[in-house]
Amino acid sequence: MSALTNTTPPRFEDIAAAAGRLKGFAVRTPLLEAPLLNAKLAGRLLVKPEMLQKTGSFKFRGAFNRLSLIPESQRAAGVVAYSSGNHAQGVACAAAMLGLPATIVMPADAPAIKIANTRAYGAEVVTYDRFGESREELGARIAAERGATIVRPYDDAGVIAGQGTIGLEIAEQAAELGASLDAVLVCCGGGGLVSGTALALSDRAPGVPVYAVEPAGFDDTARSLAGGSRVANDMSNRSICDALLAEKPGEITFELNRKLLKAGLVVTDAEAQTGMAYAFRYLKLVAEPGGAVALAAAVTGKIDLRGKTVAVVCSGGNVDQATFEAALAAAGEV
Amino acid sequence: MSALTNTTPPRFEDIAAAAGRLKGFAVRTPLLEAPLLNAKLAGRLLVKPEMLQKTGSFKFRGAFNRLSLIPESQRAAGVVAYSSGNHAQGVACAAAMLGLPATIVMPADAPAIKIANTRAYGAEVVTYDRFGESREELGARIAAERGATIVRPYDDAGVIAGQGTIGLEIAEQAAELGASLDAVLVCCGGGGLVSGTALALSDRAPGVPVYAVEPAGFDDTARSLAGGSRVANDMSNRSICDALLAEKPGEITFELNRKLLKAGLVVTDAEAQTGMAYAFRYLKLVAEPGGAVALAAAVTGKIDLRGKTVAVVCSGGNVDQATFEAALAAAGEV
Repeated sequence: MSALTNTTPPRFEDIAAAAGRLKGFAVRTPLLEAPLLNAKLAGRLLVKPEMLQKTGSFKFRGAFNRLSLIPESQRAAGVVAYSSGNHAQGVACAAAMLGLPATIVMPADAPAIKIANTRAYGAEVVTYDRFGESREELGARIAAERGATIVRPYDDAGVIAGQGTIGLEIAEQAAELGASLDAVLVCCGGGGLVSGTALALSDRAPGVPVYAVEPAGFDDTARSLAGGSRVANDMSNRSICDALLAEKPGEITFELNRKLLKAGLVVTDAEAQTGMAYAFRYLKLVAEPGGAVALAAAVTGKIDLRGKTVAVVCSGGNVDQATFEAALAAAGEV
Repeated sequence: MSALTNTTPPRFEDIAAAAGRLKGFAVRTPLLEAPLLNAKLAGRLLVKPEMLQKTGSFKFRGAFNRLSLIPESQRAAGVVAYSSGNHAQGVACAAAMLGLPATIVMPADAPAIKIANTRAYGAEVVTYDRFGESREELGARIAAERGATIVRPYDDAGVIAGQGTIGLEIAEQAAELGASLDAVLVCCGGGGLVSGTALALSDRAPGVPVYAVEPAGFDDTARSLAGGSRVANDMSNRSICDALLAEKPGEITFELNRKLLKAGLVVTDAEAQTGMAYAFRYLKLVAEPGGAVALAAAVTGKIDLRGKTVAVVCSGGNVDQATFEAALAAAGEV
């Protein structure tokens, strides 16, 4: 794959190539299970904990792969991304590791800790007025001025291929555990993670149904899959799953997802909090709300787990203490 | 190694053999690092997260290895352990996986959740009156009646060899990361984990200093190392590090530790809580108080980390919500 093909869907070979690039840089997160949880669910639940990935979310994989694909001649001009969340940190960290300058466009009223973290990774942060300016226009202007490469959060073949390495690892690690997968559940915002994971599994575990899991009010992929074409969310809706609030499915991601996914599942904010409590109690993992929705779908019975083996991706753990404690309190004993 | 040698120290070869037995049963936990934490510490901190091990602590490794060494003819009679904590769960889970009956002797006033968890792993729980009965005598009587094998928590060569697989993995994984270790910090109760880890590293990373880390008031190993012979703790002392409250170093563990360890480090309860907060914030891990003491020693400057590469073992994550939240609150912003 060359950088020129970033606007068409990746192929399986692109994921295999991404795995080679990530080796030694990304964490090969384990595939975990908790015997007590398996007993409780009367099934076998395998958890891929991407909160243990560098920068605390899976986003590092896609960012590192995408940046690795930038031709040598364009590297000194650096990269630009607009994000106040996990994508920003993934791009900033990958850029630092690869020696590229990174500019991150963030709203001026973003939490100070997020701006500080992004700077701590070595990136330049440019802030904008969320109510008066378009981050896309600002990002495009900076990129044009500097000759920098814009790194989109999901609708990019190189990014999707990087996320797809999670699917490769799930297939390999399930085999090492002697587990035959009945289903795989993956959280979904713009769809980069689930499309890449499904593409990898279509080669390495063909026939295993893959589901996108979204928060209620932001189930654009579920509805788009059901209807056959991309539909948008009402962006006046609210959810605590801040990592998953894309307006509608990406073009490239949906082109993959419509062919590769079984369906979309939806969880409420309260169920996401329950997922966070299960991660704490049984797996000793810190999950952010959006990072817990696939686990939440599994433990709240969105699919039948009894006697089945199901893998879920926990996508990130960048959550502040107050949000985390509120989730455990809301979930109660699990 | 045969079961007969369990009262003399293991050799390096016993750890290598244990690794073979554990393959496919224990989790090969990753060796994690957080770029933001490294920047903050001006060093490189590698974290071995054994809270991700089956049953939420490293104890599963030693238990599984020890039970695997029981001769076929003695297996049907089962195993007996006395513990209200991580050792109990490790033995119960390993016994269930290996098809051996397990009896766990626990105080009648142990938290209901601990008794329920141990039963959920399939073990029989026998309770005793903490004030009127000796658990050792009760355990010995049950073992004698049934012909069962007593599984001691640390002073047993098979158990130590199992814990030592953590040292093997640290050496392998540090090499994969291109990291050259300057020191390794391991939490210490009876000393099984640190002695096994040090024994493995003495072969695979010779010359790297290994430190035991203990809670204040329970620094028997630190004082025993300094004085050259085993001394006990004042058991009227108190600490939140419930997993590390052994009365004195084990005979076998100290025989190893006196030769293999550089020294002992000591952290206060407040520092252990700070370690838990670092695990939450930077590593997205749930650590119990005793499981966080080595990380705590590293981040509170008990050894010089600047420009160095240091590995720490986080030994477990079996902590209730109230204790966890109290730790984050006490630690404040980290």
